Amino acid sequence: MKAAIFKGKGNIAVEEVPKPTLAEPTDAIVRVVLACVCGSDLWFYRGVSDLPHGGVGHEFIGVVDEVGDDVARLSIGDFVISPFTWSDGTCQNCQAGFHSACIQGGVFGHGGEGDGGQAEFVRVPQADGTLLKVPGSNFPDETMASLLALTDVMSTGYHAAVSAEVDEGDTVAVVGDGAVGLSGVLSAKLLGAKRIIVLGSKTESRHVLAREWGATDIITARGEEAVQELKDLTNGYGADAVLECVGGKEATDTAFAIAKAGAIVGRVGIPHDATVDATVPFFRNVGTRGGPAPARFYQPELMRAVLDGEINPGKVFDLTVDLDDIAEGYAAMDERRAIKALVKVSALSGQS
Amino acid sequence: MKAAIFKGKGNIAVEEVPKPTLAEPTDAIVRVVLACVCGSDLWFYRGVSDLPHGGVGHEFIGVVDEVGDDVARLSIGDFVISPFTWSDGTCQNCQAGFHSACIQGGVFGHGGEGDGGQAEFVRVPQADGTLLKVPGSNFPDETMASLLALTDVMSTGYHAAVSAEVDEGDTVAVVGDGAVGLSGVLSAKLLGAKRIIVLGSKTESRHVLAREWGATDIITARGEEAVQELKDLTNGYGADAVLECVGGKEATDTAFAIAKAGAIVGRVGIPHDATVDATVPFFRNVGTRGGPAPARFYQPELMRAVLDGEINPGKVFDLTVDLDDIAEGYAAMDERRAIKALVKVSALSGQS
Repeated sequence: MKAAIFKGKGNIAVEEVPKPTLAEPTDAIVRVVLACVCGSDLWFYRGVSDLPHGGVGHEFIGVVDEVGDDVARLSIGDFVISPFTWSDGTCQNCQAGFHSACIQGGVFGHGGEGDGGQAEFVRVPQADGTLLKVPGSNFPDETMASLLALTDVMSTGYHAAVSAEVDEGDTVAVVGDGAVGLSGVLSAKLLGAKRIIVLGSKTESRHVLAREWGATDIITARGEEAVQELKDLTNGYGADAVLECVGGKEATDTAFAIAKAGAIVGRVGIPHDATVDATVPFFRNVGTRGGPAPARFYQPELMRAVLDGEINPGKVFDLTVDLDDIAEGYAAMDERRAIKALVKVSALSGQS
Repeated sequence: MKAAIFKGKGNIAVEEVPKPTLAEPTDAIVRVVLACVCGSDLWFYRGVSDLPHGGVGHEFIGVVDEVGDDVARLSIGDFVISPFTWSDGTCQNCQAGFHSACIQGGVFGHGGEGDGGQAEFVRVPQADGTLLKVPGSNFPDETMASLLALTDVMSTGYHAAVSAEVDEGDTVAVVGDGAVGLSGVLSAKLLGAKRIIVLGSKTESRHVLAREWGATDIITARGEEAVQELKDLTNGYGADAVLECVGGKEATDTAFAIAKAGAIVGRVGIPHDATVDATVPFFRNVGTRGGPAPARFYQPELMRAVLDGEINPGKVFDLTVDLDDIAEGYAAMDERRAIKALVKVSALSGQS
């Protein structure tokens, strides 16, 4: 089968590799229909983080192709959404809604010999706990893209908003207007935010989608200037809830500085040199929650919202490539020509 | 009048100073009945933090002696509880329940020319928003001590538990068995904790009170060993909620290490060199909330619980001194001979 293989900084190749096989009786093999490239994939692509060369990608939806003997809730032919991490669904962490901390869990696409989701087939451990069956078998492209967004980006934006405890009528600040930040805007709106202030780039296409999804104000200044602009918009108090969707030090410091006393910074940007100051947030009772999104926990409710036409998170994809051309998806995101690249792998109704 | 005056490291004197007068029409003057010494007072007493020499103490209950022209809700003779910070009760931060971040607020007993609560009289700014009237005028010593505990220590322990989102049936870890940690135990029990694990000292008197207030397990090991003991008690998962009641680096690191995935560390110990690590809590979705307690927010419900006999937080005082002998209260706490010292200043029914 074909798979995207990370070959070193700036180098993604599509190569022929062996099709995965069932390794454990709790595994399933999924034929990938759609995959995509994550902002976090750019960390190894840019050489900022180390990753063994090998299969990559952790976002995919597809069709169950094989199931192990202990898989009880899935059948061959089921159309499924995967989260970016696998989880058993039964441990105390999963039961508490933190599937991304499952004691039998792991994350897809970590290079080396392991499977990535940017491929024709993926082995899914703990398949019963991991995969969510989608009712139906024929969807327009827009719906397919929105279901794909639930694998990570939309679930992550939603996790930022839930972690920040966004409530009806809140003034919410979203730090970052990348794919996750934009999904955070959509999520804040879904949770009832009245005013949504985005602290983002000067890229017009991002502003358009942010406003379509509910942003009321966009701040393009950085650092102290951005903090002052937000304070001016909130009578000096700061935002009721803050979504930190970047992960770098400046963004993190800004996030804590613009939070109202007692507010929570919902963090989903992977921290890079972004230690939380001990005293400044403390004396203002500003808290923080968040981490890798328990996507599997949110997927049932978000899937219903997608299928009901309530949300359209797939709009975050502004570039579509075939698996053969996935290197262009990485390059376009790296060069900020695209917000997020969707990768077409096979037809939903196709034969494996 | 007499007042405790901080004269430098290890030196608290009781001196004659001018009785405070109304400075603003929103002020009241309170005749102090009971005061006490706070664990945080030991920071300047020990020379760890700087404080200008002058009046100190931020915990007091007493009787309204004078009111400014704009004070509408209090009358001369009212028996009142003060929080350790003053607050207007009307700004957005107060309305959100974060009185300790009031935009017109401040903290009592910061040395220099300002008033401290370890004195015969105190000027209370924003009196209408700050002081809570106690119904009644004659209470046994135990009740008086419990009402005094609401000025800071019990409200702070309660804030740790509320910030950590302690819920019915939870397994709660309390880091620290000082006066605040013990109050945290009582608070966790009040909020429905099923199991309460204290990580504390080897001081037997603290264990006795901890167990009386609901502690089920006491760990006296430190660092990695303490983390392992707690993990062993919780099937490897960690605690559902963690109260950090110390503030130092080791205690803070331990608090984050023993939190279950998705749990919150409620921090009330004033951070000393205790930066929060950016990545370890993040990858386990462990959050943190807390800061200076909005004591005024909790006092109405905690006062009801005291007056109904539901809680007896005054038991945290294991030494009573007169104002003249307050230096012994500081010394006893500094030398860990006492958990917390109560200071008798005047009779509730006495004339000013």
